[in-house]
Amino acid sequence: MSDHARLRVVTFLSDYGTADEYVGVCHLVIARAVPGVRVIDLGHGFEGIAAGAAALAHAVPYAPIDAVHLAVVDPSVGTNRRAVALESVSGALLAGPDNGLLVPAARALGGVARAVELPRATASSATFHGRDVFAPAAARLAAGEPLEALGAAIAADSLVELPEPSVRSRPGVLESDVLRADRFGNLQLAATAHELEGAVTVNGVAAVVGRTFADAPPGGLVVLIDSSGHVAVAANQADARAILGNPAIVRIQATTNAKS
Amino acid sequence: MSDHARLRVVTFLSDYGTADEYVGVCHLVIARAVPGVRVIDLGHGFEGIAAGAAALAHAVPYAPIDAVHLAVVDPSVGTNRRAVALESVSGALLAGPDNGLLVPAARALGGVARAVELPRATASSATFHGRDVFAPAAARLAAGEPLEALGAAIAADSLVELPEPSVRSRPGVLESDVLRADRFGNLQLAATAHELEGAVTVNGVAAVVGRTFADAPPGGLVVLIDSSGHVAVAANQADARAILGNPAIVRIQATTNAKS
Amino acid sequence: MSDHARLRVVTFLSDYGTADEYVGVCHLVIARAVPGVRVIDLGHGFEGIAAGAAALAHAVPYAPIDAVHLAVVDPSVGTNRRAVALESVSGALLAGPDNGLLVPAARALGGVARAVELPRATASSATFHGRDVFAPAAARLAAGEPLEALGAAIAADSLVELPEPSVRSRPGVLESDVLRADRFGNLQLAATAHELEGAVTVNGVAAVVGRTFADAPPGGLVVLIDSSGHVAVAANQADARAILGNPAIVRIQATTNAKS
Repeated sequence: MSDHARLRVVTFLSDYGTADEYVGVCHLVIARAVPGVRVIDLGHGFEGIAAGAAALAHAVPYAPIDAVHLAVVDPSVGTNRRAVALESVSGALLAGPDNGLLVPAARALGGVARAVELPRATASSATFHGRDVFAPAAARLAAGEPLEALGAAIAADSLVELPEPSVRSRPGVLESDVLRADRFGNLQLAATAHELEGAVTVNGVAAVVGRTFADAPPGGLVVLIDSSGHVAVAANQADARAILGNPAIVRIQATTNAKS
Repeated sequence: MSDHARLRVVTFLSDYGTADEYVGVCHLVIARAVPGVRVIDLGHGFEGIAAGAAALAHAVPYAPIDAVHLAVVDPSVGTNRRAVALESVSGALLAGPDNGLLVPAARALGGVARAVELPRATASSATFHGRDVFAPAAARLAAGEPLEALGAAIAADSLVELPEPSVRSRPGVLESDVLRADRFGNLQLAATAHELEGAVTVNGVAAVVGRTFADAPPGGLVVLIDSSGHVAVAANQADARAILGNPAIVRIQATTNAKS
Repeated sequence: MSDHARLRVVTFLSDYGTADEYVGVCHLVIARAVPGVRVIDLGHGFEGIAAGAAALAHAVPYAPIDAVHLAVVDPSVGTNRRAVALESVSGALLAGPDNGLLVPAARALGGVARAVELPRATASSATFHGRDVFAPAAARLAAGEPLEALGAAIAADSLVELPEPSVRSRPGVLESDVLRADRFGNLQLAATAHELEGAVTVNGVAAVVGRTFADAPPGGLVVLIDSSGHVAVAANQADARAILGNPAIVRIQATTNAKS
């Protein structure tokens, strides 16, 4: 049996970008600690904790069931926010800051079964806990160390959660917070279902309810269910975020009949 | 013999970007289906099918001879465009949308030997066929399944092809469509040979014909043969695309002698 | 013993970006020459040789001790600048252009023990030595070929070095060249220590001396020691480079007491 077969796959999501060496240094820390481990990048350009959390929750169900998910979107690095590692009910492991980033993903894996607080590394920098705290923790978990070896147990309900995004719906109207925009300018909403059909307006701009981008004319807006199961506003070969002026809230309204 | 040795290498090219989780989710789908397989990214920021097709055709000759090439630049995802997998005469495999993206690469590998249409996955999303259709197909091919197991055979000459780019040449003048610009602003032309030398103008801007970037003065334009064998217009430590105003067609003209 | 265990890890840093196929083609060249080798990307968006050199010097101490470091930030590709491979005193290997990119990293690994000049490949392009010269050299080194098999020995003190960045310090004032900005707009200075504390100005803008980003108010500037051990100017959830107008030199001055 090869080493490879006994190691857990590590996934890695962050806001470090791929222009600089930060992502690579975390890969090196893991490779040096656990030479045969495989690390799969899940994107490194997330703008804000909520965007990273939504992406991580989308991705983790596709990972090997016992994967270790390393995630670092951490604007408060160096403050007294906790560093944590979690085990999901499904048996996956997650490591990252205790700022709401990990909890939606753990929920997508059945919920948080156990949690520990990672101690601050003594020689740790104040600004690069990906390298100094989280990647070393992920490496130890990938190598098979039990969660409790990494830190003291904490209560699952003590974990920081992001504010619940707001969704308001009544017949013919759906109003929802925007969770995030992707690089194409597609807006993913907090809402996961809608009963609109046909012609609508999105923040006053004409749109169609459809199944895919091409259901709108080129440059036109379309409201659809995206690949994560969320309501999304997209544009056919254009940038919905730009068309709508980068909104934080989207209001979708059925177009009134001319005769009424 | 290890698993590793029996699996084909997968390459992956797309327009998904590396900021979001889309590329990573496709990696996860493949890793989960075929745990030991190796996936090599070939760039994820291509603007348009033609740019992706040119890049893929450049890259595939450098891959292991029996690699599986997964490519997704797919503005018509969710419409009735076909999803296909091809085998090249050289024995490589390709999977992606039937929109012209794969054919130039197959040609660079000796031509299309066989082709099949991939069935639409029943539970498939309308907007993320990379995850739901193409990555699963690439995984099956990497694991050694024969092409015909993936779908019904289709005629190679039924595959969609991009319009042939236009190149017009006469003594002292080369006029060519631009295939693509890279991140440095180098413009790759459809033309693959030219007989110009010395001083020229490119869309009216003075340039030199040279061998490398430094043959022009800093900020100056140079016409050269690029690393894919195409005529290209570059600038020494500057952005040729910006200097020329992002042209779709480039006209290179030998500079007339002052005495004539 | 598996092949995997006998191969050196390769790291790869460049300015090629991840939008195009250039990075992937270099990966393919290595994978085809040495199928089992592992390549870890160290970032591909560096703006200039000095930025790449600083990042590489930061990263290499975290790599496996016998890694091969492939680095290509090479604005003078195709000119008569030399192509080189180095062995560090610590036993790591480096391959890249002889333009100052590799030397700070070699120094971070104990200094240059030996150096060779790589011959120009006969069939080499004039613009893509990453593919044609450096990746093949890195592959041979990863497979275990000795340094001297790759080219003729050259004197370590003949290697090109970047100009020493300027740091001037006197009580209450630190003036330093900017080494680089990362994607967050954090400015890394050449200075590696400072004796400032409390309130300062940075190029005339009010700032605090702190330990982490959050020591400044949101949008405010903070002077800190970054994760590479350099003095850095950052902003709390904002872009210090933009706030300061992308400076090449930074002057940090202790704020004068109001009473004096």
